[in-house]
Amino acid sequence: MARRAKQNIRVETTYGPLRHPYAPQALFSEDYINQIHSEALRVLETLGLKILNAEARTILSQNGAIERDEMVYIGRDMVEEALRTAPNHFTLKAADPVHDYVMNRDTLLFAAGGGSPNATDRVKGRRAGDRETFENCLKLQQSFDVIHKLSPSCEPQDIAPNLRHYAMTEAQLRLCGKPMFAYARGRAQSMDIFDMVRIANGLTDEEFIADPWVTTVINTNSPRLIDHPMAEGLIDFARAGQLCVITPFCLSGAMAPVTVAGALLLQHTEVLGALTLHQLANPGAPVQYGAFGSNVDMKSGAPAFGTPTQIQLTIGSGQLARHAGLLWRSAAGTASNTHDMQASGETHMALWGTLMGNANSVYHAAGWLEGGLTFGFEKFINDIEALRSIAHLTRPLSETTQEMGFAALEEVAPGGHFFAAKHTMERYETAFYAPINADLRSFGTWEGAGAVPAEDRATRLWQGIVEAYQTPASGLERAATLEPFITKRTAEGGAALSA
Amino acid sequence: MARRAKQNIRVETTYGPLRHPYAPQALFSEDYINQIHSEALRVLETLGLKILNAEARTILSQNGAIERDEMVYIGRDMVEEALRTAPNHFTLKAADPVHDYVMNRDTLLFAAGGGSPNATDRVKGRRAGDRETFENCLKLQQSFDVIHKLSPSCEPQDIAPNLRHYAMTEAQLRLCGKPMFAYARGRAQSMDIFDMVRIANGLTDEEFIADPWVTTVINTNSPRLIDHPMAEGLIDFARAGQLCVITPFCLSGAMAPVTVAGALLLQHTEVLGALTLHQLANPGAPVQYGAFGSNVDMKSGAPAFGTPTQIQLTIGSGQLARHAGLLWRSAAGTASNTHDMQASGETHMALWGTLMGNANSVYHAAGWLEGGLTFGFEKFINDIEALRSIAHLTRPLSETTQEMGFAALEEVAPGGHFFAAKHTMERYETAFYAPINADLRSFGTWEGAGAVPAEDRATRLWQGIVEAYQTPASGLERAATLEPFITKRTAEGGAALSA
Repeated sequence: MARRAKQNIRVETTYGPLRHPYAPQALFSEDYINQIHSEALRVLETLGLKILNAEARTILSQNGAIERDEMVYIGRDMVEEALRTAPNHFTLKAADPVHDYVMNRDTLLFAAGGGSPNATDRVKGRRAGDRETFENCLKLQQSFDVIHKLSPSCEPQDIAPNLRHYAMTEAQLRLCGKPMFAYARGRAQSMDIFDMVRIANGLTDEEFIADPWVTTVINTNSPRLIDHPMAEGLIDFARAGQLCVITPFCLSGAMAPVTVAGALLLQHTEVLGALTLHQLANPGAPVQYGAFGSNVDMKSGAPAFGTPTQIQLTIGSGQLARHAGLLWRSAAGTASNTHDMQASGETHMALWGTLMGNANSVYHAAGWLEGGLTFGFEKFINDIEALRSIAHLTRPLSETTQEMGFAALEEVAPGGHFFAAKHTMERYETAFYAPINADLRSFGTWEGAGAVPAEDRATRLWQGIVEAYQTPASGLERAATLEPFITKRTAEGGAALSA
Repeated sequence: MARRAKQNIRVETTYGPLRHPYAPQALFSEDYINQIHSEALRVLETLGLKILNAEARTILSQNGAIERDEMVYIGRDMVEEALRTAPNHFTLKAADPVHDYVMNRDTLLFAAGGGSPNATDRVKGRRAGDRETFENCLKLQQSFDVIHKLSPSCEPQDIAPNLRHYAMTEAQLRLCGKPMFAYARGRAQSMDIFDMVRIANGLTDEEFIADPWVTTVINTNSPRLIDHPMAEGLIDFARAGQLCVITPFCLSGAMAPVTVAGALLLQHTEVLGALTLHQLANPGAPVQYGAFGSNVDMKSGAPAFGTPTQIQLTIGSGQLARHAGLLWRSAAGTASNTHDMQASGETHMALWGTLMGNANSVYHAAGWLEGGLTFGFEKFINDIEALRSIAHLTRPLSETTQEMGFAALEEVAPGGHFFAAKHTMERYETAFYAPINADLRSFGTWEGAGAVPAEDRATRLWQGIVEAYQTPASGLERAATLEPFITKRTAEGGAALSA
């Protein structure tokens, strides 16, 4: 299997950069989308946002917002100015320049599941995330070219919180060469991370600040609350020119209204409010409209994913983000607790929603289980198959007479076959998507070979990749460059989390 | 579990009739679609079709086609006349009128997997289809309102071929009330089936012929061959006013050219040629453009499903069918040999292709495994979840200020929740899709309850439905009405298959 895995590593760079193959769908009329936008401006003005960070409130109030206790009321002129300064294209820079990723209106970017406290696989079972597992997740993310940006997969909980950001940042720079993520967990940690990225990539301050080398996700605390670390993250990443993906996590029926339009209204309000703070902190800083909404089960309150509501929220979010002129980020997902048909089905449903909405960035696109509480290794492989299929779909088809193959029809007699036709022989090697985990053999052959289901084949595949993984020489160099900084900062006690 | 199953049977009639929620996507430019259409007319004229049935050749040659040996060359004027007479709307009639299904441009119809020699479930395992299994499949199809038309699921091979059509037709009329299928396996069997439908539903000849009560699928023998039973089926079903779904099974790289455009050209040629025969046999008889294409794996020749090529062929087929002004039929599918993540993923991929192509009828939408060689019971349940989700997506959303819920945002404090908000309480009961098999519980709760994966939950669900199934009184009446006919025809030796 290691041999097969090595083959898979070699298919890297087959797909990508990806562009959306299909036109975006519409959930609502353009008129109603405009009404939601206007209503969001009214909410910001009249109901306001609660912001727990004093510096953030001051930035907003000094620019015209009304501050009362911890509430901030933001005028529509401020929002409109923020939308004017927010960029609608930028390039995610990577340690290895081949992985730089241009973000514009047509871009389709995939990132693996992130933020899970746990991990699971069919060898070790389910457990709390640790450093080894976190690094194995990075190896998998680096090995498939349909993963365009790194994600925080599972949390390495065996590392102390004041030192964890060193390990998570160092591992990305050592093992991988793709655009990075960082958590916004307080100013001290953010500054450490920015320093590490600069040092490892040999960047001046000006070079670093000129492009987004690191992406963070800002989750507002729906409804209408921005907590201290999130507000600080907006300010710090904006000032450093690094990418903020402002993502209210709107679970309809729980933290968001029960209707699709209501959940979108809340989401839009929070994105626009946070965006205004972000652009005031540094006008023109890279930012994305984040949308990750689904619904809860109204009997139990449990979050559900891959649901019709998630698909509708995704398509509606795309309309609102485009209305606001912003690049946007969506997500796949599943509530399933294990590697089963539910997990695969829900994730595919959600993925297609992101295609229908023309999401520019699709996070949690591979490996999510349990509504994000666990990163699943076999699930990752299953989802990579889906992402590779979608990548294949993005390839344009040529519209020539030769492609139609009248000559092939002429060559093959009625009832014959095209296996050996000239038209086939000229094209067969690259004609079709080559699956990595799907088993296409007949039942008898498959049964005779042990009747191995997709879940177990996925185990062999990720194991082979992890075992064969070679840390790139450039990554070893970056790690060596970083070592003095980490040693020094560790000796100084690391960096505390934000209060 | 029987209790849960009974609850599920009770959700019948929640969804449907369905209309497509999203605009059709385009694979090719309209100009290129027009070129493929023209090229298909050229193939029919110059390369022709091989038709093994003399009556069919005569019908075509008497109307202007050139006949040479078993080849028939069909002029474009004949095709254009057939496209003029073919209807673009009709109603599938059902034994129980509540299940009548109006077919027009926006219609979305789902039918379960059909035509499998085998069946499998996690209780009895994989085996050849038999009468009991066939009837259990019918009970499942009748129990979910997202299944709009009956399908031949698995073949009851324990019944002799000369009597099998009596059992398959009688079981549909006894156990179910939805629009029916029939195999075109020779004139004698078709006439028996038409008699049974007339007798069971108390129809005059005129009433029967006026609407399609029975649907058959005509699979051309790609490339460019129509065999004896298929040609006879086209003629017999057309004359009886029953629906023919003309479906070349174009596996790109094997029975069809290796390119998407080439496979579409062959498919379009065969549909138009068979349609011309069909409309000459009875102008205006109900017909659908059938499209079921995918690709083979070029290393092994094995058919693959849920692939990018299948999605592209589906979207392109929709363009060609609409270009021809015909309602059309597509299909989902999977090559997986068991109830695993591959099976669920491939089927979801293919289903979304049918949505993107705005297929009017989606066959094999639930229960297919092994590229159609097996009907899987747990797979059926898994796929029904997908179809119900899609059905929920088809529900229009209202565009009102109330739906946006400014008042709800006003009511809920920052950081609060919407569980008890007035806006929620007024809507929560019907707001979200209610899953039938997805388990949304937390990992701990799910594990504590036995860690049952989706596959095993599906087993309990279908078992409960089958055990609780009550044959409708109207079905028992229809069966009693049919009994003398079946007894008589059985005594006469039944009906032989077509040569």
